[in-house]
Amino acid sequence: MLVALLSDFGLQDHYVGVMKGQILSHCPGAQLVDISHQVSPQSIDEGAYFLEQSVSYFPLGTVFLCVVDPGVGSERKAVALRAGGHFFVAPDNGLLGRALDRLDGTQEIVELYPVEQKSATFHGRDIFAPAAGKLAAGVSLHSLGSPLENLLRRPKATTIFRAQEVEVTVLSVDRFGNVIFDFPKARQWEPLRPGNSFQIGGRELPFCFTYSRVLAGQSLLLWNSSEYLELALRDGNAAQEWKLSPGERVNISLRQD
Amino acid sequence: MLVALLSDFGLQDHYVGVMKGQILSHCPGAQLVDISHQVSPQSIDEGAYFLEQSVSYFPLGTVFLCVVDPGVGSERKAVALRAGGHFFVAPDNGLLGRALDRLDGTQEIVELYPVEQKSATFHGRDIFAPAAGKLAAGVSLHSLGSPLENLLRRPKATTIFRAQEVEVTVLSVDRFGNVIFDFPKARQWEPLRPGNSFQIGGRELPFCFTYSRVLAGQSLLLWNSSEYLELALRDGNAAQEWKLSPGERVNISLRQD
Amino acid sequence: MLVALLSDFGLQDHYVGVMKGQILSHCPGAQLVDISHQVSPQSIDEGAYFLEQSVSYFPLGTVFLCVVDPGVGSERKAVALRAGGHFFVAPDNGLLGRALDRLDGTQEIVELYPVEQKSATFHGRDIFAPAAGKLAAGVSLHSLGSPLENLLRRPKATTIFRAQEVEVTVLSVDRFGNVIFDFPKARQWEPLRPGNSFQIGGRELPFCFTYSRVLAGQSLLLWNSSEYLELALRDGNAAQEWKLSPGERVNISLRQD
Repeated sequence: MLVALLSDFGLQDHYVGVMKGQILSHCPGAQLVDISHQVSPQSIDEGAYFLEQSVSYFPLGTVFLCVVDPGVGSERKAVALRAGGHFFVAPDNGLLGRALDRLDGTQEIVELYPVEQKSATFHGRDIFAPAAGKLAAGVSLHSLGSPLENLLRRPKATTIFRAQEVEVTVLSVDRFGNVIFDFPKARQWEPLRPGNSFQIGGRELPFCFTYSRVLAGQSLLLWNSSEYLELALRDGNAAQEWKLSPGERVNISLRQD
Repeated sequence: MLVALLSDFGLQDHYVGVMKGQILSHCPGAQLVDISHQVSPQSIDEGAYFLEQSVSYFPLGTVFLCVVDPGVGSERKAVALRAGGHFFVAPDNGLLGRALDRLDGTQEIVELYPVEQKSATFHGRDIFAPAAGKLAAGVSLHSLGSPLENLLRRPKATTIFRAQEVEVTVLSVDRFGNVIFDFPKARQWEPLRPGNSFQIGGRELPFCFTYSRVLAGQSLLLWNSSEYLELALRDGNAAQEWKLSPGERVNISLRQD
Repeated sequence: MLVALLSDFGLQDHYVGVMKGQILSHCPGAQLVDISHQVSPQSIDEGAYFLEQSVSYFPLGTVFLCVVDPGVGSERKAVALRAGGHFFVAPDNGLLGRALDRLDGTQEIVELYPVEQKSATFHGRDIFAPAAGKLAAGVSLHSLGSPLENLLRRPKATTIFRAQEVEVTVLSVDRFGNVIFDFPKARQWEPLRPGNSFQIGGRELPFCFTYSRVLAGQSLLLWNSSEYLELALRDGNAAQEWKLSPGERVNISLRQD
């Protein structure tokens, strides 16, 4: 009965409200929680990252309704599936990939049946939200669509390792201007440890374990709360300082004394 | 027990949270859904459009609490009413007009009784939210105010038809920069069909049924998911490109070969 | 079972959604209401003001989960407490001060037990949200931490009274550009009454009781809906006009004829 919503629809318009009205029309009393509706427009990678970081903190049985959908109106499939004790409803464009990698395996996938569409452009309202509402109301997955074998997966961002340098992609910039790189701790680049300093765009900064190890106005690299590499500027905005936004490539070099 | 909220209060401040606290003080357990709180400040027309586009997707019995209220503190009335199986609470300034036109007729209107006001400037908290909470809790409409015959209606935006041209008003700009004109499909301007091209501000663009009919970086006219005329730029921001914002007038001319 | 959330996390990222997932994991069915997540980053004073203005409009028994936490990762304590029939969970940095001053007295404070932390940087998810969820589920306060005698209090902003002038601090700027000063009506500066005019930054403006007493494009001083002194520009944005933001000092002088 819990539906968690993720999209790039923003909160400015009525789009998210309309999806919620649809969910509640199919499942009165469903509980609704927003993960975010401010994924950078059409950024599947950022949406996938938000979902990956959220999924394990929600109670079992949550229905995740995820719509970041640059291909709306094209041939991409609309899918629903069960994985790790949760349900997911989304376009089949790789948006779910990072989250599913964290879960115990995908048990059942369906391609949603087409519906009599009121419009070619708002599948969130006409296809995805009704499916999520029905799942929340206990309707079985197989009654919503035809079985599907595999989901489309997105290629992972290329990380290039050189002698004392790594080249990475910006995955997200958060409200505080922290820059999150598509570089999880599990990649184990040995130089990333306290005591070492690095250069980014000609500026030097240390790696630390917490913000509080540097002074206000100083920058640092750290593993963020999601165990991804993050560039932060204490009491400031690192993304503005380095002029970085999602999708850009950045070189991080170990500074040699 | 479902209250849907619409306002121009934004999400930056505590204003919406306080309204919700008030609703729940009058109706513990009420379910709350935001349509939007980011209506352009004091834009009754945009708020009316959001409500019109949302109302039919909510379950019967929803209480719509709508506050876009440039006249707060003046003589405008505060009203509550029943229409099409829903309840509405709003200032009497035309905000409900477009939605009511879509419903089966208005059965009962009351002018809300004045309350002992804590403040001259936050009727959302002191007048509208308590009324919505009471309606959600099952209090009867006639106990909240005195009967009122008619609501104030707003004049509709003037649409001027010329030989091969139409002059329309910008109603809303969405998060993606899509420009929505106050021109519903029902107006039936015959030239708006696939195959025809148009000029706006010296630039040419086709009419299509879906975004996916043009390439990234190309613009188009289409009927949006609400069946209003929309100017879009695929993978871009049409409002920025054409420098358009709500309230502006735009000429759309059929291009003759 | 009602949890009200206040933070500076913004709505762009998944941070708030993850906290909500955590609350619901500890208290399925809890009702969640956002006060605001757009407190100016790390502005304890603005957060404290939002909470003060909200607390009395929520039903008794509400759990207020409040995270504006510039000291995360440092030595500051994490606390939970009971006051005025409500529960509060927050960092011990003065964030709760203004709200507690309005309530009937604080009955019980605990310093939250440390938890096995997944991360040094997201106490909202790992410490505060689980505590709020447990309180909402009926877990007793004393089982969550060790007794604490006193909370840290923030110094109040200095207000300097001169002959016909007062020097005050900007507390918040709302969505409409209204500038709220840290100057409650209770300070009783006698000149602030209708009929008097004032100067701010070389410009003259009247004190009035409501916006509607001035024309569009004119500015005024008034007691806002929270009974704090506010600088407003009717149908315009006062903060932009005067270039004011939270924390700035402003002189308000009585104009003598």
